[in-house]
Amino acid sequence: MAIKILGFPGSTYTLAVLMTLEELGVPYEFVEVDWTEIKSPEFLAKHPFGQVPVLIDDDFTLYESRPIAVYLAKKYQGTKKSTILYPTDDERKSALLDQYMSVEYSDYDPAIKIVARELIYTKFNGKTPVQENIEEGREAISKVLDVYDKLLEGKDYLAGDFSLVDIFHIPYSNYLIKLNNRDLWEDPKRPNVVRWWKSISNRESWIKLISEHEAKLLVK
Amino acid sequence: MAIKILGFPGSTYTLAVLMTLEELGVPYEFVEVDWTEIKSPEFLAKHPFGQVPVLIDDDFTLYESRPIAVYLAKKYQGTKKSTILYPTDDERKSALLDQYMSVEYSDYDPAIKIVARELIYTKFNGKTPVQENIEEGREAISKVLDVYDKLLEGKDYLAGDFSLVDIFHIPYSNYLIKLNNRDLWEDPKRPNVVRWWKSISNRESWIKLISEHEAKLLVK
Repeated sequence: MAIKILGFPGSTYTLAVLMTLEELGVPYEFVEVDWTEIKSPEFLAKHPFGQVPVLIDDDFTLYESRPIAVYLAKKYQGTKKSTILYPTDDERKSALLDQYMSVEYSDYDPAIKIVARELIYTKFNGKTPVQENIEEGREAISKVLDVYDKLLEGKDYLAGDFSLVDIFHIPYSNYLIKLNNRDLWEDPKRPNVVRWWKSISNRESWIKLISEHEAKLLVK
Repeated sequence: MAIKILGFPGSTYTLAVLMTLEELGVPYEFVEVDWTEIKSPEFLAKHPFGQVPVLIDDDFTLYESRPIAVYLAKKYQGTKKSTILYPTDDERKSALLDQYMSVEYSDYDPAIKIVARELIYTKFNGKTPVQENIEEGREAISKVLDVYDKLLEGKDYLAGDFSLVDIFHIPYSNYLIKLNNRDLWEDPKRPNVVRWWKSISNRESWIKLISEHEAKLLVK
């Protein structure tokens, strides 16, 4: 039975999981969830907090995007393609990947969300974005990217080789870049970030994914 | 060479890592970091975002508390004591532990932090806590704990057996309980949460740790 991913095509976390599957070359069925059904008893039986994405792999149900991606990588990497997204042969390499995944969650994501809140969700709710909050968020992203420029010194990707952690940076950054923040990711003061972003955002798997789901992305 | 943990004794994430080591029975050296030195070039060389805790295991440096704890568990569990904190023999068990660790980070921690911000940090900064924010945070915690009561149905611990995920819930909850929020964790409407909290907060390792560091906890 094919792997099922339940989610919204516009959800950044759903997109990160789908990109993981594309990179691994694993066939899957994408089941679009109706936004209004997310807090229904039926959906809550799959995800008790009523969020997306959810993975169904035969009789196994798993939620939370990062753990789903780690599970998929550990189980399927190297089977359909030679791609390895989560190294398991070296305890230090796995730990460093976990560390960078945590940095994405603790430092990158919160900075991004300050701006996303204003430019995506405030607008959705029919309110006017607050310029001061946008500026505060852009400043926060800039500081995080300054550190990333050091982290990426002498490396093509965050954990050395291309991996899950790079994937998880793509969907939200892509939205913000399309909302007039391209300058942050293309600032020549941060040459390593520029090089990294260009490389990961041009992955074939990502291009395919956003072209497939274009009509339903939160930012076109 | 002994494992070194650099951190603040009052930091909840430092305490979670120390508790992991206590549970594993692994000897370690705790190096208290001077708060004013955290953004110094010397410390930034160990943790580029200037945060605690940091692990130094021989020539290997790792930051971010959850990845540190996972690394320690994978490497040392079963060697000093029989304790297993991160199951590695079953891909589904590991994935479910990752899932619950992510729930702690995505759902539990943010709710807790709304209240902690008011009752700990606002006071530290000499400002007056805003009662409305405290109530909003308590409501958020209550909703999360309602789901936890279902997650803990028929189980002693979140992932079945006692594990890393239980440890990561203890330090912040302990602070909030000491700050007059005990009712949330002892609400008879949530019998599974009551039983779980009583069990994990009475672990020998935790009692030892807070008695050792009592003078420097953020909340006594």
